[in-house]
Amino acid sequence: MFHLLDIIGTMAFAMSGALTAMHKKLDPFGVFIIAFVTAVGGGTLRDVLIGRTPVGWMRDMQYVYVIILGFFLAILFRKSFDKLRTSLFLFDTIGLGVFTLIGLERGLLTGLHPAICIALGTMTACFGGVIRDILCNEIPNVFREEIYATICIFGGIVFFGLRKLNLNDDVLYLVTSLIIIAIRLMAVKYKWHLKAFDHK
Amino acid sequence: MFHLLDIIGTMAFAMSGALTAMHKKLDPFGVFIIAFVTAVGGGTLRDVLIGRTPVGWMRDMQYVYVIILGFFLAILFRKSFDKLRTSLFLFDTIGLGVFTLIGLERGLLTGLHPAICIALGTMTACFGGVIRDILCNEIPNVFREEIYATICIFGGIVFFGLRKLNLNDDVLYLVTSLIIIAIRLMAVKYKWHLKAFDHK
Amino acid sequence: MFHLLDIIGTMAFAMSGALTAMHKKLDPFGVFIIAFVTAVGGGTLRDVLIGRTPVGWMRDMQYVYVIILGFFLAILFRKSFDKLRTSLFLFDTIGLGVFTLIGLERGLLTGLHPAICIALGTMTACFGGVIRDILCNEIPNVFREEIYATICIFGGIVFFGLRKLNLNDDVLYLVTSLIIIAIRLMAVKYKWHLKAFDHK
Repeated sequence: MFHLLDIIGTMAFAMSGALTAMHKKLDPFGVFIIAFVTAVGGGTLRDVLIGRTPVGWMRDMQYVYVIILGFFLAILFRKSFDKLRTSLFLFDTIGLGVFTLIGLERGLLTGLHPAICIALGTMTACFGGVIRDILCNEIPNVFREEIYATICIFGGIVFFGLRKLNLNDDVLYLVTSLIIIAIRLMAVKYKWHLKAFDHK
Repeated sequence: MFHLLDIIGTMAFAMSGALTAMHKKLDPFGVFIIAFVTAVGGGTLRDVLIGRTPVGWMRDMQYVYVIILGFFLAILFRKSFDKLRTSLFLFDTIGLGVFTLIGLERGLLTGLHPAICIALGTMTACFGGVIRDILCNEIPNVFREEIYATICIFGGIVFFGLRKLNLNDDVLYLVTSLIIIAIRLMAVKYKWHLKAFDHK
Repeated sequence: MFHLLDIIGTMAFAMSGALTAMHKKLDPFGVFIIAFVTAVGGGTLRDVLIGRTPVGWMRDMQYVYVIILGFFLAILFRKSFDKLRTSLFLFDTIGLGVFTLIGLERGLLTGLHPAICIALGTMTACFGGVIRDILCNEIPNVFREEIYATICIFGGIVFFGLRKLNLNDDVLYLVTSLIIIAIRLMAVKYKWHLKAFDHK
């Protein structure tokens, strides 16, 4: 179940990357790389920083296949993207929740401090998008708009709070993911965002 | 022989990086760093992702010396660059072929799936240029113009095809590199390129 | 003593990152990430390239706390920044000297060639700022203005020169840091800078 959500999230991230790259008029190779990097960039950075190499996607071809599929779907449906916007947003939100959990878990397995685990969860969920934006020569979106990373950090704090209750691991993971997903949906619905500082 | 080609490719990449950086009006330190990163960036990223550390150029000073030489040559000949354009393009193409092979070989030695080996070959050949463009604040050229990375991917497929014929390793490497180099030359001569998607 | 200077340098780098990010109108999460990356980015890149993982800041929470403190101080004092410019510049210069030494030491511990150790020292001191500038979508400052990285390289050469005199390690570190700090102060006072090449 959790694994299925991981696959859905990966595909959604790949499609969002592909759509951004097509919008920037990149050639098919560029579109594929951006799709790939958006989908696995966060997890790759996490793996490199904790020394888990070869990094994840090199050891599990499933991710590669899913990304290739997402790439072709994005190309196929690029003109009816408006109609698919809601589904894609939902998938992307599932990815946000699941990827955060995967990063948290990986940090725990490496024996790191809870604050570092939360950083790894946020990185896994958000840095694919950061690398996508850097490659497309834009200031990363996650630093500027709607709360996105902040939800991952909050989700991480909830995770360590709930963990003290000695819940079953499956329940703990499911509940935390659902909380992250629910907050993201509300955040977009009610247009929550962080205000930039009034720097002189 | 193969090693000599590696040296030629490294120098060509360093020179191409230095010329780009001078064009962007960077100071000598910036020019040197961009030269360095263009020459070893792809291999460094590859080594980091597969966990081969300290990364290559830290263990073999020869690369450092070659890059320093390329840096000075680029400065010396910067005004007669137009006359040298053809030689530099040839060297760069040799680098493309050789670096792809080095990445493929490194992937095989790490025991990775052929598709991942091809990704590593392409990364070794192309990502130095990607990092160069990011540092110079441009959308990476490789995502936008003439087929370049696509040739590396094709070369990788040819490599695994030929490998089934049980050729001698030296022959296999030489033939694959030559195919990559030949296609690149034809691609530029006949202006082959990938078309961006007609995104609405 | 040396450790205290490391802390001061980390905080100064975090504050300089936060101020740049506020200037770019990033949201609080973006400001925090840029502060973090500016402070630890150079050391993180160094650790990844030499294979020292999990990277430094994941193993010593002290850095995280110092960066959080620097982040809040930067927010608090953002409007009186002009008055603080001199102090911040001094702290930043201390960071430059200390971070160079930490990188040099790390290279020696890994058994690398002196030239590579100097590269690691320069990377530790300067690449946090490079990553900051890339994330803010600018050509890295260090490639374009006043001599900065050049001072680190020079400091590294002095370090290996003095090391031949068999000085006590503490003395060697202190003297090299002070030389780097002194040159930086003079470089800014007398407006030393590298000239870009007169590329046609």
